[in-house]
Amino acid sequence: MSPVTTLGEVADRFGLALSGEPAVAIRGVATLRAAGPDQLTFLANPAYRAQLPTTRAAAVVLHEADRDSAPGAVLVSRNPYADFARIAALFEPPVPRHPGVHETAVIDPDAVVEDGASIGAHTSVGPRSRIARGAIIGPGCVVGEDCIVGEGSELVARVTLVRRVRLGRRVRVHPGAVLGADGFGIAMDQGAWVKVPQLGGVVVGDDCEIGANTTIDRGALDDTILEEDVRLDNQIQIGHNVIIGAHTAIAGCAAVAGSTRIGRWCLIGGGAGIVGHIEICDRVTINAMSMVSHSIREPGTYASGTALQENDQWRRNAARLRRLDEFVRRVNARLNPRNEP
Amino acid sequence: MSPVTTLGEVADRFGLALSGEPAVAIRGVATLRAAGPDQLTFLANPAYRAQLPTTRAAAVVLHEADRDSAPGAVLVSRNPYADFARIAALFEPPVPRHPGVHETAVIDPDAVVEDGASIGAHTSVGPRSRIARGAIIGPGCVVGEDCIVGEGSELVARVTLVRRVRLGRRVRVHPGAVLGADGFGIAMDQGAWVKVPQLGGVVVGDDCEIGANTTIDRGALDDTILEEDVRLDNQIQIGHNVIIGAHTAIAGCAAVAGSTRIGRWCLIGGGAGIVGHIEICDRVTINAMSMVSHSIREPGTYASGTALQENDQWRRNAARLRRLDEFVRRVNARLNPRNEP
Amino acid sequence: MSPVTTLGEVADRFGLALSGEPAVAIRGVATLRAAGPDQLTFLANPAYRAQLPTTRAAAVVLHEADRDSAPGAVLVSRNPYADFARIAALFEPPVPRHPGVHETAVIDPDAVVEDGASIGAHTSVGPRSRIARGAIIGPGCVVGEDCIVGEGSELVARVTLVRRVRLGRRVRVHPGAVLGADGFGIAMDQGAWVKVPQLGGVVVGDDCEIGANTTIDRGALDDTILEEDVRLDNQIQIGHNVIIGAHTAIAGCAAVAGSTRIGRWCLIGGGAGIVGHIEICDRVTINAMSMVSHSIREPGTYASGTALQENDQWRRNAARLRRLDEFVRRVNARLNPRNEP
Repeated sequence: MSPVTTLGEVADRFGLALSGEPAVAIRGVATLRAAGPDQLTFLANPAYRAQLPTTRAAAVVLHEADRDSAPGAVLVSRNPYADFARIAALFEPPVPRHPGVHETAVIDPDAVVEDGASIGAHTSVGPRSRIARGAIIGPGCVVGEDCIVGEGSELVARVTLVRRVRLGRRVRVHPGAVLGADGFGIAMDQGAWVKVPQLGGVVVGDDCEIGANTTIDRGALDDTILEEDVRLDNQIQIGHNVIIGAHTAIAGCAAVAGSTRIGRWCLIGGGAGIVGHIEICDRVTINAMSMVSHSIREPGTYASGTALQENDQWRRNAARLRRLDEFVRRVNARLNPRNEP
Repeated sequence: MSPVTTLGEVADRFGLALSGEPAVAIRGVATLRAAGPDQLTFLANPAYRAQLPTTRAAAVVLHEADRDSAPGAVLVSRNPYADFARIAALFEPPVPRHPGVHETAVIDPDAVVEDGASIGAHTSVGPRSRIARGAIIGPGCVVGEDCIVGEGSELVARVTLVRRVRLGRRVRVHPGAVLGADGFGIAMDQGAWVKVPQLGGVVVGDDCEIGANTTIDRGALDDTILEEDVRLDNQIQIGHNVIIGAHTAIAGCAAVAGSTRIGRWCLIGGGAGIVGHIEICDRVTINAMSMVSHSIREPGTYASGTALQENDQWRRNAARLRRLDEFVRRVNARLNPRNEP
Repeated sequence: MSPVTTLGEVADRFGLALSGEPAVAIRGVATLRAAGPDQLTFLANPAYRAQLPTTRAAAVVLHEADRDSAPGAVLVSRNPYADFARIAALFEPPVPRHPGVHETAVIDPDAVVEDGASIGAHTSVGPRSRIARGAIIGPGCVVGEDCIVGEGSELVARVTLVRRVRLGRRVRVHPGAVLGADGFGIAMDQGAWVKVPQLGGVVVGDDCEIGANTTIDRGALDDTILEEDVRLDNQIQIGHNVIIGAHTAIAGCAAVAGSTRIGRWCLIGGGAGIVGHIEICDRVTINAMSMVSHSIREPGTYASGTALQENDQWRRNAARLRRLDEFVRRVNARLNPRNEP
């Protein structure tokens, strides 16, 4: 039932140098350890290099430098992970979606569903929203007012676009994501909170991907913006009026507070937090669970936090850290009694 | 199509001192930088003061102290952010909702939907639940058993009230939020977990707001409680039997573990974590991503964590921190060989 | 309306030694502080021992060691919390669910719903998926392609099983959870991201529980696996190809990155983060908000982070920590000028 190809066809199609028998049938892809003689595998992360000599795979997509360690056929690539990704896509055919509006969907009379779009069961589309041709709205989605879902974009299932959310082309949004909810704007006045209206929207560029249960609030006055090819993992929170540059990727559970601007080609680690109203330049990497509390103006890798320890050791060190300033002052006074440099 | 007012009407309606021409038409609001000559803007955060002299806005809502730096008309306010919030609300008219039950909604025969309530598409309301007059249940919501949605409250879309959730008046719950799910109660017995039933409910006071994908578990025996005017941002987790005092605001991705009690007028920063079974007094501020591991009995601002650094520096410091206790002991022994104080 | 039992029946049914009058009627359960004369309560956490002498409860489930401090009847247990959990379950009768498919549900012709399963309102079940006998699919759920919901399992409401998700028996999944979404696999090539297909699935063992708005991604090539009796709280993120051992419990907002393997009987604290591609052995406890950045090979308790402090103190210590390595080097040079050990 799976698609079938051959080593030779793969080499031709993706422009890879094959060392091996072109006629060998390929019926799937698998890990180095699990692949059988009709499956392709790959080696990109050096941590798995030890598994290369014993793989039973039909062929391994790998760097030139690793080819001599392979036990059989190889496909040499300058970027084995990316080439393997393209090959693997042959073996996950898209789920067939029937164009048209499911009979249980509720489409506002002032909404537009273009020809060739697919609207799933139990979905609603609000006034002045437009679903472009080739777009897929999966089951259980809610598209509110004044939204656009661009050509070839997909809301997988149970996605909410609240209001004024404009998705570009080929954007993919995973279940449970909420785009365009009210930003968290509140003003204290005489002991109680006053809600600040959130009059902006959310703009998402072409080829962005947004993970499950991620939330992107709409802007207070201007829009919240993701440029093209931004990749967000699950459970990320993006505050109102944030701007994220093209090709930046953010791992799960990270959060960006309001009005912060992140550059292009940044990598934000899982669980990292970025405070509001700052700027991060292009090509910055933030380690997992770090907190960014000020602007970053130089490309590079940044971190905060402390290393994991056995709990009793941790407690002793944490107790010392609580008094570190006092300790440093005391030591400095003893070593530099006359305050020499 | 936008509402239109004048500077004079705004000044009168909100009790602000106008310095400028009352007849000027106002068609919207915008930031200092973006506002045009028919838009109002404001200055509250000093970080944006440099943008004041060049704004093109029709008028600026600002503090008395800033009025001389404004290039044109001003509306002087003791609280510019709150007054601007009230003005801005003129320009986001509520989405019209039709009272009544959508034909695709499923209402249990033992549920009550009062006159003037609006029940959206693909929503279900369970037995013994009551939707009060003027309440709005948006599309895709699930209201389970024994819930109350009070007058003028709104479940925006795809909200779940699982069981025994009672919302006061004018409560707003954003998409993806789950209130009243089982608290995380498990007891280990002979190597396996026994589930602890969660027999309580959730009580939410008047004027609370609950963000997208936030979760508030129902209590194990007593209820989980939010007093009035509590403001929760997105992706917050509130454990069973937590009590949160009135007017407390919590930023995105923060979490409060079970049975903890938080006072009134507290501000909890984004990503902060608060352990279970502790108490935090009124008027406490917790910085973003801090961890609160013990009760706090004095108002003030608290923090934990470490500052962001370039990664190589961070690694060196983190390695030293792992052995800080040992280092302090060694230094103390050298500087105080006879253990003098 | 509540169920009624007697002290004697409870003692018999759960094998507890009763000291008190067996005929006393029991109409519910409550905390030590709130319980009235027709309610049972329990004492397991020593922090609440001070409330024991004044409880008005009909009887207290407690350890032998506490019995003499009780003011009235007691049920002596070797594990009071677990026994109380079992007793309390008598007072939360399951919500009645009608077997059969709700008229608003949409079932693919190639899906199988076994006799005795219950499919709620506004739910959809995709091709080649199977809902086993006695399983409950609550309202607003989406079950995609090639999924299995095992006997007696329950999707409470608004749960999404995206693709290739196989749940064992008696699994309970809370609202907003998303299982089987695409893992976060992306490869950078010539300045843009290439999506890595996620060809695996998710396998969840018998008796697991999965909290509200938790996300578990499907594997890239192999499956993501939870062994039996794994308990996940709310808003947890489990990356692709993670394996979690039996009887492990994870508290709210924790996250596990891809391809990491966690052992059995582990306890992961709230907000903890575990990086990808590592292994954690059996019986490891991770404190709340700790970050695990390397494999753990010894059972025990581990922590990272710093203690909470008043903000001004925190700032001074954090500033010193930023230069800790430099300080240690300087002190060592002064105390060991000839580099003695």
